[in-house]
Amino acid sequence: MARIVMKFGGTSVGDIDRIKNVAKRVKREVEAGNQVAVVVSAMSGTTNQLVDWCKQMAPLHDAREYDQVVATGEQVTTGLLAIGLQELGVEARSWCGWQLPIRTDGVHGKARIMTIETEDMIRRMEQGQVAVVAGFQGLGPDNRISTLGRGGSDTSAVALAAALHADRCDIYTDVDGVYTTDPRIVKCAKKLDKITYEEMLELASVGAKVLQTRSVEMAMKHRVRVQVLSSFEDKPGTLVCDEDEIVEKELVSGIAYSRDEAKVTLVKVSDRPGVAASIFGPLADAAINVDMIVQNVSDDGKSTDLTFTVGKADLDRAKKVVSDAGLTFEKLVADANVVKVSVIGVGMRSHAGIAQKMFQTLAAEGINIQVISTSEIKISVLIEEKYTELALRALHTAYGLDAA
Amino acid sequence: MARIVMKFGGTSVGDIDRIKNVAKRVKREVEAGNQVAVVVSAMSGTTNQLVDWCKQMAPLHDAREYDQVVATGEQVTTGLLAIGLQELGVEARSWCGWQLPIRTDGVHGKARIMTIETEDMIRRMEQGQVAVVAGFQGLGPDNRISTLGRGGSDTSAVALAAALHADRCDIYTDVDGVYTTDPRIVKCAKKLDKITYEEMLELASVGAKVLQTRSVEMAMKHRVRVQVLSSFEDKPGTLVCDEDEIVEKELVSGIAYSRDEAKVTLVKVSDRPGVAASIFGPLADAAINVDMIVQNVSDDGKSTDLTFTVGKADLDRAKKVVSDAGLTFEKLVADANVVKVSVIGVGMRSHAGIAQKMFQTLAAEGINIQVISTSEIKISVLIEEKYTELALRALHTAYGLDAA
Repeated sequence: MARIVMKFGGTSVGDIDRIKNVAKRVKREVEAGNQVAVVVSAMSGTTNQLVDWCKQMAPLHDAREYDQVVATGEQVTTGLLAIGLQELGVEARSWCGWQLPIRTDGVHGKARIMTIETEDMIRRMEQGQVAVVAGFQGLGPDNRISTLGRGGSDTSAVALAAALHADRCDIYTDVDGVYTTDPRIVKCAKKLDKITYEEMLELASVGAKVLQTRSVEMAMKHRVRVQVLSSFEDKPGTLVCDEDEIVEKELVSGIAYSRDEAKVTLVKVSDRPGVAASIFGPLADAAINVDMIVQNVSDDGKSTDLTFTVGKADLDRAKKVVSDAGLTFEKLVADANVVKVSVIGVGMRSHAGIAQKMFQTLAAEGINIQVISTSEIKISVLIEEKYTELALRALHTAYGLDAA
Repeated sequence: MARIVMKFGGTSVGDIDRIKNVAKRVKREVEAGNQVAVVVSAMSGTTNQLVDWCKQMAPLHDAREYDQVVATGEQVTTGLLAIGLQELGVEARSWCGWQLPIRTDGVHGKARIMTIETEDMIRRMEQGQVAVVAGFQGLGPDNRISTLGRGGSDTSAVALAAALHADRCDIYTDVDGVYTTDPRIVKCAKKLDKITYEEMLELASVGAKVLQTRSVEMAMKHRVRVQVLSSFEDKPGTLVCDEDEIVEKELVSGIAYSRDEAKVTLVKVSDRPGVAASIFGPLADAAINVDMIVQNVSDDGKSTDLTFTVGKADLDRAKKVVSDAGLTFEKLVADANVVKVSVIGVGMRSHAGIAQKMFQTLAAEGINIQVISTSEIKISVLIEEKYTELALRALHTAYGLDAA
C-alpha cells in the first residue's frame, strides 16, 4: 500500500466527461490498495474568465478580492470530482484550501504555502476516503482566501505530498512525460524514465514547460518523488527524483532551448572597477532579469565589450535603463534574433569533455557561438535563432540521445 | 445615519456593467452617511450552470458536494463588487458565508440560518467599510459550506439585517415593488407603498413571486423592515413592515391568483368518522401538499362529496394515492382547469362584508365558485381557469384598488 497524491490540471478536468475520466483513474489507484489525495485545477478556461472579470471591474484591483474571485474555479472542480467518485462507489470528499487549512503567507495573488494541517485528512484517508483538494489556493494570515499564482496547483500538489509524507506525487498533464528535447523539433527525442530534481529545474527554467519551477524546487527540498504523466494515455511518465534513485546516469539528460532571450552588447565600455555594478544595479532596480553575462578582457586596458541577455519582452526597457545609466561606451547593439541552447546533465559534474563536444558539434554545422555560460550541470550557448532546429538535432545526436 | 442591508439578485448583477451599476447605487447610500452591508446573488445563469454540472456528474449527488459547487457563484460576485466599490473610492471587502461565519444547521442544500457572527463586520462598518456578503450560503456544523436552497439570498439578507439590527433591508430586484395584483393582467394595478408581513406572506404564497416566503417569515419574526425596489429604476419601492407602521390601512391590499392548482372531487364517499384522515394521511405521507379542502354535509347521512386541491404537478400522483387508499366512493373527478383567486387584507379582521362583495362581484360576471376557503386575512375561491383575467379585473375594481 502506498500513499499517493494525484494532480490533474485544467485540460484534464476541462469538461464533465473529462472529470468522469479522472474519477475512473483515481478509482483504479484506490482499487490498487492505495491511499489517495487528489489535487485539481479549475476547468480549463475558467480561471481566464474570472481573471478577465476582475480586470474589467478595475485594471488595478485588490489582490485579496482577486483571490476571492479566482479561487472559485478549483472549488467547483473539487465538488464535481467528489460527486464523480461517489457515483463510482468510491468514498470521497472535497476540501477547500481554508478547510484543511493550507496556510500561506499574506502575499495575495502569489502566496507561498507555509504549513498544511493534514491530521483530519490522514485519518479519513486511512479509513479509505479519497481527499479531493482545491489546488492553487490557501488561507492567508488574515483569514481570507489566498492564491499561489498561475500554475500554483502543481505547487499545491507537491506541498500536500510533502505534508502527507506521500510515496509519490503524480502530476497528470497534457504531455506524457519529460523528453530529451522538444519532440516537435527533434522527432527522435526520447521520453526520460527518470530525471533528477536539478536537471528538471534547469529544463523547466530554460523552456520545457512541464512543471512549474516552484513546485520542482519544493519537491527537491522535501524530497518528494514527482511523476509527470499523461491524463489521456495510460502509460508511465517521467519520475523526477533524487540522484541516488537513478542507477544508470546519462552524462547528458536533455537539450533545452529558449527563444525568449535578447542580447545587448555595449561596445567599448570604459573598463574600470564598478562598471558592471553601474549597469546591472539599475537593471535589477527596474526588475529586469539578466541571464547570461560575458565581459572580455580589454585589449587596451581602458575599454571592453560587455554582453548580456534579457527577456525579449524587457529588451526596450533594458536599452533605456542602460542608456540612462550615465556610462561611457561607443555604442549599444541590441539583437533579439537569438536563441539560447542548453545541454543539461548531472553527469557533467564528474566528466570532462562535455562542453568541448558541444562546441565541436556546433562548429561542424557552421553555427557561430555568441555567448557561453555554464553552471554545475548545464552549458548554455547563445546562437542565431535560425539555427535552433539544426543545433538541437545535431546536439541530440552527438550526445547519443536519439531514440533507437 | 442609518444601518442598511442592500440585497441584489441575479439579474441585478447579471454582467460586469450591472455590477458596476450596483457599485454606484451602494456608493450613494454610503455618501448619504449610512453604514452599508450588501448581500449578493450569483450572476444570473451561473447557478443554473453549476447545478446542471452536478446533475451531469450524477443525477443523485451528495448535497454537501452540491453546496461546495454552487456556493461559488455568490463568492465570485462578492469579489467583483468589492473591486467595483474600491474603484469608486468606497472602502469595501468581501465575505464568504464561512468567514463571518453565517452558521446554519446541517441540512445541506436547504440549510436554515442559526446565528450570524457580526462583531468584526460591525466594527468595520462603523469605520466606513462596506461589507459585501455572499448570499445563499453559510457554514454547517460539519465546518463545510452549506446553501439555503434556491432564492435563499433574500433570506440571507433579512437574517443579516436582523443580526446587524439594521434599520432597513432593501431587496433590489427586477420588479419595482409589490402591486395590488398582477400588472400584466390588470393594467391599472397600483404599486403599494406599504404592506404588512402577513399580507406579503399571503401574496407570496399564492403566486406573487417577489420575495421568498421564508425571508418574509424571518422578517416578520425579527421585525426587519424590508423594502422591495427596482435595481434598474431610481424610485421608491414597497415597504414590508409591521401593521403599526401603516397608518391608513386599506380593507383589501391585493388580489392574488395561482394557476398551479388542480381540483380532486370524491363523489359519494362514505361519510363515517376517520374518512378524512384516511385520505389526507396517505397524501401527506407521499409529500403531496393539499391546499383547499371542502366537505359538504351528507344528504343521506351515509355519503358525501369531498373536494380538495393539490399542486398541478402532483395531480397524477394524488389520484393514484387516493385510489389506493381503500376508500369507498362512487367516482373520482379530477380537474386541472382551475385557478385560485384570493382577496388579501389585514382590514378584514375587523370588517364584515368583504367576502360577500367577492361573491357578489363574481356572480355579477357569471363566474361560478367551485370551492371557498378563508383565513384571517384572506378569502380564496377556486374558479374555472378561463375566467382568471375577468375575475381579477372585476375584483380589483370592486375593492376600489384601480389606479386613479
